[in-house]
Amino acid sequence: MNKHSTEPALMSLVAVAKAIADKKFSSREVTQSCLNRIAEWQPRLNAFMAIEAESALAAADAADAALAKGNNRGPLHGVPLAHKDMYYDAGKVVTCGSKIRRHFVATTTSTALQRLKDAGTVRLGSLQMVEFAYGPTGHNVHYGAVRNPWNVDHITGGSSSGSGSAVAARLTFAALGSDTGGSIRMPAHFCGVTGLKTTVGRVSRAGAMPLSQSLDTVGPLAQTVEDCALLTGLMAGADPEDLTASTRPVPDYMAATQGSLKGLRIGVPTAFYVDDLDAEVARVLDETIATLKREGAEIVKVELPDQRQLTAACQLVLATEAAAFHKRWLIERPQDYGAQVLMRLQNGLAIPAVSYLEAMRWRGPALSAWLAAVAGTDAVLAPVAPMPAPTIAESDVGNSIDAEAVIQRITKFTRPINYLGLPSLSIPTGFTKAGLPVGMQLVGRAFDEAMLVRIGAAFQRATDFHARVPKLS
Amino acid sequence: MNKHSTEPALMSLVAVAKAIADKKFSSREVTQSCLNRIAEWQPRLNAFMAIEAESALAAADAADAALAKGNNRGPLHGVPLAHKDMYYDAGKVVTCGSKIRRHFVATTTSTALQRLKDAGTVRLGSLQMVEFAYGPTGHNVHYGAVRNPWNVDHITGGSSSGSGSAVAARLTFAALGSDTGGSIRMPAHFCGVTGLKTTVGRVSRAGAMPLSQSLDTVGPLAQTVEDCALLTGLMAGADPEDLTASTRPVPDYMAATQGSLKGLRIGVPTAFYVDDLDAEVARVLDETIATLKREGAEIVKVELPDQRQLTAACQLVLATEAAAFHKRWLIERPQDYGAQVLMRLQNGLAIPAVSYLEAMRWRGPALSAWLAAVAGTDAVLAPVAPMPAPTIAESDVGNSIDAEAVIQRITKFTRPINYLGLPSLSIPTGFTKAGLPVGMQLVGRAFDEAMLVRIGAAFQRATDFHARVPKLS
Repeated sequence: MNKHSTEPALMSLVAVAKAIADKKFSSREVTQSCLNRIAEWQPRLNAFMAIEAESALAAADAADAALAKGNNRGPLHGVPLAHKDMYYDAGKVVTCGSKIRRHFVATTTSTALQRLKDAGTVRLGSLQMVEFAYGPTGHNVHYGAVRNPWNVDHITGGSSSGSGSAVAARLTFAALGSDTGGSIRMPAHFCGVTGLKTTVGRVSRAGAMPLSQSLDTVGPLAQTVEDCALLTGLMAGADPEDLTASTRPVPDYMAATQGSLKGLRIGVPTAFYVDDLDAEVARVLDETIATLKREGAEIVKVELPDQRQLTAACQLVLATEAAAFHKRWLIERPQDYGAQVLMRLQNGLAIPAVSYLEAMRWRGPALSAWLAAVAGTDAVLAPVAPMPAPTIAESDVGNSIDAEAVIQRITKFTRPINYLGLPSLSIPTGFTKAGLPVGMQLVGRAFDEAMLVRIGAAFQRATDFHARVPKLS
Repeated sequence: MNKHSTEPALMSLVAVAKAIADKKFSSREVTQSCLNRIAEWQPRLNAFMAIEAESALAAADAADAALAKGNNRGPLHGVPLAHKDMYYDAGKVVTCGSKIRRHFVATTTSTALQRLKDAGTVRLGSLQMVEFAYGPTGHNVHYGAVRNPWNVDHITGGSSSGSGSAVAARLTFAALGSDTGGSIRMPAHFCGVTGLKTTVGRVSRAGAMPLSQSLDTVGPLAQTVEDCALLTGLMAGADPEDLTASTRPVPDYMAATQGSLKGLRIGVPTAFYVDDLDAEVARVLDETIATLKREGAEIVKVELPDQRQLTAACQLVLATEAAAFHKRWLIERPQDYGAQVLMRLQNGLAIPAVSYLEAMRWRGPALSAWLAAVAGTDAVLAPVAPMPAPTIAESDVGNSIDAEAVIQRITKFTRPINYLGLPSLSIPTGFTKAGLPVGMQLVGRAFDEAMLVRIGAAFQRATDFHARVPKLS
C-alpha cells in the first residue's frame, strides 16, 4: 500500500468513524495521523489557532480504552475534530479570531459542539477565523491570513477560513463553521470542500459567538455531503438554551443521501447568479448542469426577482446587529479591533432604526417572491461566487485599491440566501486550469436540508472533485 | 318603571345579547336606544367619528328578521357596537383619527372585527381616537378632543378616547380599543369602564392599524369584566393573516369569571406603582385592597425591579416602530400631521438601530426579573395612573407649559406592562369626591387573561363602581 492508502486522515468522516467503531484503526492512530498532517501543513496554511496534541492523544487513548470495554459513546466515537474558534467549550480559550478575546475562557459549551462531543468526538484544537467572523476573505490582522492549500498565495474565503483550509488539507475530518453572509459556503467553494449552511433556526446557536441574530447559522464543512449530513443530524433540533432553534422534527439526513436525482427538477437562474462569472466558473456551471442531467435531474430555468436588493438588505441587517453586539467594545476598546472590522462595525452604529426595521420587514415579501419564482423546482443551482479564490494580496484592503470591489464581488451570490434564511449546500464541482477549486451551491426550501443532501450526495457519487487532495508544495 | 329601567342601552353586553336572543328586546329597539343616547350625548362628548343610524337600523331589522326565522347568527346576534376607528371594515372609511386617512376606504376587514361580526353584531358607526393612536390624553387637532362623560372639561385618556367615552356614557355596549402604551387601560380608568389589554399575540392584529409591531395589542372596553371576557373569547386565537397571533388554545373566559378570590394571592408593589399617587388614588387603592381581602384574596407585597427603565424602553421601541410605519408619510405629508404626533414620529426617525436592538434585547431579562419578583402571586394590583382624569386644558401641550409633564405622569404605570408584553385588566374601583372615576389594573402572566377576569369579575360582584352611569349635565 502507498502512504496515502494507509493514512487514516485522508478518509471521510463517515468512513473513519466506522473504521474506529470496527477497530480497524484506533482513535490514537487516527488522531496521530491528523496531528502528523497538521505538523506538516500548519506552517504553510496557518489553519489552526491552537493545536492540542497531548490532550487530543490522551482523549484518543481514553476513547480506545472505552471501546475496548465495549463502551461506544456514539456515532463519532474517537473521531478527532477541530472547529472554528467561536464555539464555546467550557474551560477552553475561545478567541473568536480577535485580540479582544485572545485570552477569553469559555464557561459554557455551545449546544452544537456539545452534541458532537456527546457523539464521541476528540478535540484536536481550534481553527483560525476572520476576526469576530466579520469578513469574507480569510485575512486577519491579529493572527495572519489563513492560506488556501491548493495554492498558498490565494485566500481561503471567510469567515470560516481555518475550517475550509484544514478540511481541504485533511487536517481534520470536518469542522464547524458559521454562515451569516456566506462564511461556510465561500471557504467550501474556494478550498474545494463540502459545506452546509443550514436554515436559520435548524441548529441551536447557544454558545456560538453571535454576529447577527437574524442571519447567523451553524453548519459543518467536511469532505463529503454524507459527512455534512451526519453532523447536521447530530446537531439539529430544539434547544432550551436557544428559543430560536426550531422544534421541528429532524429528518434522517443520512437516509436522504441515498436518494437519486430521478424525477427531481433543479432550477438554474436566468440572471444575476449567472452574470459576471469568470469564464472558468461559467464552464464549471455548465459541466455541473450536464452531470445533474446525466444523473436524471431535469434542469429548468427560474426567473428570480431582483437579487441586488437582497444583498443590500443582508448587509444592512448584518451591520446593525453586529454593531449592537459590539457596542460596548467599540466604545471602550476600538484600538483592539483590526481596521477593516472596526470600520464595518462603526458603520453599523450609524444605521437608523427605521432603516433596519424596513430591511427586516422586507424579508417576508422577498421570501414570498423567491418561493413563487422557484415553484415547481426541488432546489436552485448557482455558483457560490463569480470567481475562484483571488490572491491574498489582491483582496487585502490595506494592499490593493481594488480589494474592496473584490470583496463585494465575492459575497454577491451568498448574501441573498442569508437574508432569505434558506439552507444552501456548497459542493466541489470542478477545478480551474490553474488548479483552484470551484464550488456550486444548491439552495433549498426552509428546513428542507434533506433535499439538498440528496442532490449533493448523488452528485458526489457521480464525480470525484470532493475526493481530490491538495499536495504539499 | 322609570326611564332607565326601560332603556336597553343601559344593560351590559352580556345582558343585552341574552335579551335579544330571548326576544325580550328586538335588535331594533336596542339599536334605537343606543342611537337615542348617541343623539343626546354626542354633542357633549365628540365620542363618535361616524354615526350610521340608517344602516344600523337596517342591519338591526335584518337581525330581527333572521331571529324570527330561528336563525341566530351567534352570541352577539343583533347587538349594536361601535369601535375605535382603526379596525378595517371592508368598504368603510377608517380614518385612524388622522387627516391623512380622512377618506381612506378599507378593502379588508380586520380579523378581530370580523370575528365579532361573525358573532352577529350590528355596526353603529365608528369612534374617535387619538391621531394614529399615538397619544395618551384624547386630544385630536383634526377632530377635536373627546370629552369625559363624568365631567366634559376632563380628558378621556387615549388613545382609545372615543371607546372610553362612548362605553361610559352607554352609547355602545362595548368597543374595541388598542393598547400599545396604555391606550385601553387609561380610557377605562379615566372614564370608569372595564378594559382588557391582552397579551401580545393573544388577539390577531391583522387589519388593525399598526402603531408598534412589538407592543400593539387588541382588546375590548365594556361595562363589565364579563363583557370583556365574552368579547376576548370571541376574538382570541390563531389567524393565518397574522403569524404573530399565538396558536395557543383559547380558554373559556366566561367560565373563568365564575371563580372566587378564595386562595388567590394578589401582589401589591412596594414601590413605583404606589409612589407619587394623588391622595384620592391612594385611598381607592387601599379600599380596593380591603375589598379583595374581604372577598377572600391574600394580599402580598412584591418588590419589583426598577420600573423606570421599562417605561423608557417602551417609549423607545414604540417611537422607532411607529416612525418606521409612518416614514413615507413623514417625508411626503408632514404638514398633514398634528404637531404633537409629528414631533413624536420625527423623534422616532432619529433613533439608532443599535439602541432599538438594545431595548428589544433587554425585554427577555426584564420579563424574567418581573416574573421572579411576582413569583407566588396570581396577579399584581396597581393603579392605572397616579391621578384621575386631568382637564383637557391642563393636558393640552399647546395650552399649558406643564402639559408635557402631565402626559409623562399619565403613562408611567401602563408603559412598563406593554414593554413586558403582559395582559392587564383595568377595572373601575372608585370615584373621587369630585365624581371622577378611578380604576386599578390587574397585571397577569402571559396568556393568562383567565386569571385576570376571574379576579375582576369577583371584584365586580362585590362592588357597583362599574354599574354607575354618568348623568347628562
